[in-house]
Amino acid sequence: MTNAFTSKRHPLARLAFMTTLLLNLCLSAQAQATEGPTTALQSLQTLDDSQIAARPLSIRAYATHERTRVLFIETHALPIVDISVRFSAGSSRDGDLPGLANLTLKLLNQGVEGMDAKAIAETFDQLGAQLTASVDKDEARLTLRTLSDGETRKAAIDLFTRLIAQPAFAPAAVERAKASALNAIGLVQQNPTARLQQTLHAQVYGNHPYARPVEGNAQSLALIDAEKVRGFHQNAYTAANALLVIVGDISNDEATDLSIAISQALPQGPALVPVELAMDLTSPPGHTHLEAPYSQTLIMLAQPSVPANHPDYVALQVASLIFGGSNSSRLINELRHKRGLSYAASAFIPLWQAGGPWTISLQTAPDQQDATLALVKTLFAEWLRDGPTEEELVAVKRRLAGNLPLTSASNAQMVQQLLLMGAHDLPRNFDALVIHAQKLSRQDIKDAINRYSRADKWKVASLGPTVEQRPLSAVQP
Amino acid sequence: MTNAFTSKRHPLARLAFMTTLLLNLCLSAQAQATEGPTTALQSLQTLDDSQIAARPLSIRAYATHERTRVLFIETHALPIVDISVRFSAGSSRDGDLPGLANLTLKLLNQGVEGMDAKAIAETFDQLGAQLTASVDKDEARLTLRTLSDGETRKAAIDLFTRLIAQPAFAPAAVERAKASALNAIGLVQQNPTARLQQTLHAQVYGNHPYARPVEGNAQSLALIDAEKVRGFHQNAYTAANALLVIVGDISNDEATDLSIAISQALPQGPALVPVELAMDLTSPPGHTHLEAPYSQTLIMLAQPSVPANHPDYVALQVASLIFGGSNSSRLINELRHKRGLSYAASAFIPLWQAGGPWTISLQTAPDQQDATLALVKTLFAEWLRDGPTEEELVAVKRRLAGNLPLTSASNAQMVQQLLLMGAHDLPRNFDALVIHAQKLSRQDIKDAINRYSRADKWKVASLGPTVEQRPLSAVQP
Repeated sequence: MTNAFTSKRHPLARLAFMTTLLLNLCLSAQAQATEGPTTALQSLQTLDDSQIAARPLSIRAYATHERTRVLFIETHALPIVDISVRFSAGSSRDGDLPGLANLTLKLLNQGVEGMDAKAIAETFDQLGAQLTASVDKDEARLTLRTLSDGETRKAAIDLFTRLIAQPAFAPAAVERAKASALNAIGLVQQNPTARLQQTLHAQVYGNHPYARPVEGNAQSLALIDAEKVRGFHQNAYTAANALLVIVGDISNDEATDLSIAISQALPQGPALVPVELAMDLTSPPGHTHLEAPYSQTLIMLAQPSVPANHPDYVALQVASLIFGGSNSSRLINELRHKRGLSYAASAFIPLWQAGGPWTISLQTAPDQQDATLALVKTLFAEWLRDGPTEEELVAVKRRLAGNLPLTSASNAQMVQQLLLMGAHDLPRNFDALVIHAQKLSRQDIKDAINRYSRADKWKVASLGPTVEQRPLSAVQP
Repeated sequence: MTNAFTSKRHPLARLAFMTTLLLNLCLSAQAQATEGPTTALQSLQTLDDSQIAARPLSIRAYATHERTRVLFIETHALPIVDISVRFSAGSSRDGDLPGLANLTLKLLNQGVEGMDAKAIAETFDQLGAQLTASVDKDEARLTLRTLSDGETRKAAIDLFTRLIAQPAFAPAAVERAKASALNAIGLVQQNPTARLQQTLHAQVYGNHPYARPVEGNAQSLALIDAEKVRGFHQNAYTAANALLVIVGDISNDEATDLSIAISQALPQGPALVPVELAMDLTSPPGHTHLEAPYSQTLIMLAQPSVPANHPDYVALQVASLIFGGSNSSRLINELRHKRGLSYAASAFIPLWQAGGPWTISLQTAPDQQDATLALVKTLFAEWLRDGPTEEELVAVKRRLAGNLPLTSASNAQMVQQLLLMGAHDLPRNFDALVIHAQKLSRQDIKDAINRYSRADKWKVASLGPTVEQRPLSAVQP
């Protein structure tokens, strides 16, 4: 039985879920690039730029004595509370054991003293609570949604705290998780987009920890045991390495008590030093082609970009939106509308702590792979030379402004935004980046893209069959 | 970013999610077969058989004037309500357009009059409501979990009703869903277990609709358009073809009103006639091998079995549990414990309306594929000849009895059980099948397996590399 609403998506659409993107700026771009314009956005295109101003939003920010940073929004619209803990414990912390961070996270709900995985799942289920978790190159994250009623909440949070602070890491559970991880590695090898992304990251990041897949590999998994997992947990799941986000129907005092309880329960130890920046603009271009008998060839191009707290981040994200972030982007206009070359094509910068890869992603007919790739490179070179047009800049600013009215944001959306804010030390104002974007000139954007992008330094990965190549057809008038 | 707690599992474990299984009887067997015994089960092994008796559970059952059947449990432990609608609208209703049922379900949350997919998702999110959906060979199912507070609940249920009763089926959304379905078909081809299952079902079911994959195929998808989808919806998503299950913090009167509102909103039309039974015991054996460069060979054996409301269903499920439903089953004892041939091996009967395939599923080393397969067939022939031992029967009855105390069942578990009860016309008592199981003798089970199973009629599908075969090693003493 499959969950039809969540499990199956277009391979390029999947990218949106595999990368962490910045607030509205990027979340909307991804939706646009893959799903088509939404009516909600269109109806806001008449918004006057002058309406845009910082909205006051009551975000409470503090740290516990144990140095867990906390961001909190109190809102009583619904009787629920979302509690999310983010550790700087992603795969870039794997060291010489790729897959260790992934395995550690997976084991947290597999047992605590006196409760096995089934008992844990049943307890949350009986409390009407939901636990979700994710891991990527930078972070491991767990989120609990619970009803705010005192007793239910207390029971759910107590178990949540035990999972993250005192997991059992039973040797049998570790072995099961390793078997499952090995299987997942096999599945990634059979997923075209995931394979292509891994190939691309290996090229873009060289010796940097970002080069390695989150899932690790069979060799390293064989070396991991319960002791290694426990060591990783003691080191990376510490109070000082944690960001705690709380949103919902809970008072200030209750949220404070809860923060202190979680922070004190966690292993005590220093915050890990940040992963070194991965912005090598000097490395040579390259192209890795993977052979596969598909009817469409997948192509991804990338070069390293800047982290979210970089002064030029907003200019680069806006540039990326104009170039490939909507259904009227340059990329889509040239590839799909003018030439019918590609159904899906998009550009984006995933939000990674040490600088994510500025990525262009597209599908095309196998016999036009070379011609399409050459066209994309030419389009990008022209883009660096000329920068955005006035029309493009006005249009993207209108779109971003249209996403501003967040007064009706859901708890889940607020959690997401607080996590990004906390993880990347962004201004404590949901609209700060959008307001920043409104102030950018054509020259600002042109300067930024030329500072951090090179027309001749693309790393390229492609996946498809090798067939005879033909030139592009003439542009339709 | 991946959801580490739900997205990745062992390929055999996935089977548990791809098949619908009967109440505790089977849910526990699957968990056992793939996850190892749980402490909860062990602690109950001393339960006295005499303690087992039907518990009163207040299940209210009725039908609306429009002939939607309704099952309702009122429980105020948590301020939430789960509402699940099940239509007899699975892929066995596809007719000559495989994939139509799957596509129709997927499109329900992609737009209603005045709201696109994004607006729908945001509305549920803001209400703290969750929508999930699934489709299999028999059914399409949608479940809404909402807070029980009057206004929130009303808004969530109104939108839920619009989705299922008046989906927009916009041509652009249909095209997007088709592109996504095509991609999903590609992914299935790359998923070893799913490929193997499709191959097996094609063999076991011949010309029966169960032979075809839920996802359809590229040829049939090309023929599907908005009109076809609308036609399927009008035909299969009718009030009379629906089963409505409500569990939670809502009064009897409110649940009745809500049932009537949903039933009246749905298309009106007759219930579809049941899909014809698929129990052909005469068709010849067969073996399809798929070549793949894996380090383990996957093998599945199947023959058709009976539907859940069949008088021999319980005896066959109990037999299946003894043969391959736990870590001390015959299959695991012989394959793993005695010979180290297979890490994962299990037997189960998925609960399909027209009779699911009695399936044995295992992994083994490629060079022992033939020997392992021969061993499994021998074990099964001995099983038909001798039936279960007294020890095996006592152990399985204890295990089943240990699952009885459902007084603390979660709402989600109750929803699941009511859906099975309603879909398969089972007795309106959660424990009826387990109580039935307690009464079975060795002879009952031996008779049942011999009535519906043949030692020489296995359909086999295998997936792995072709390598030189070696005999089994001697059994370790």
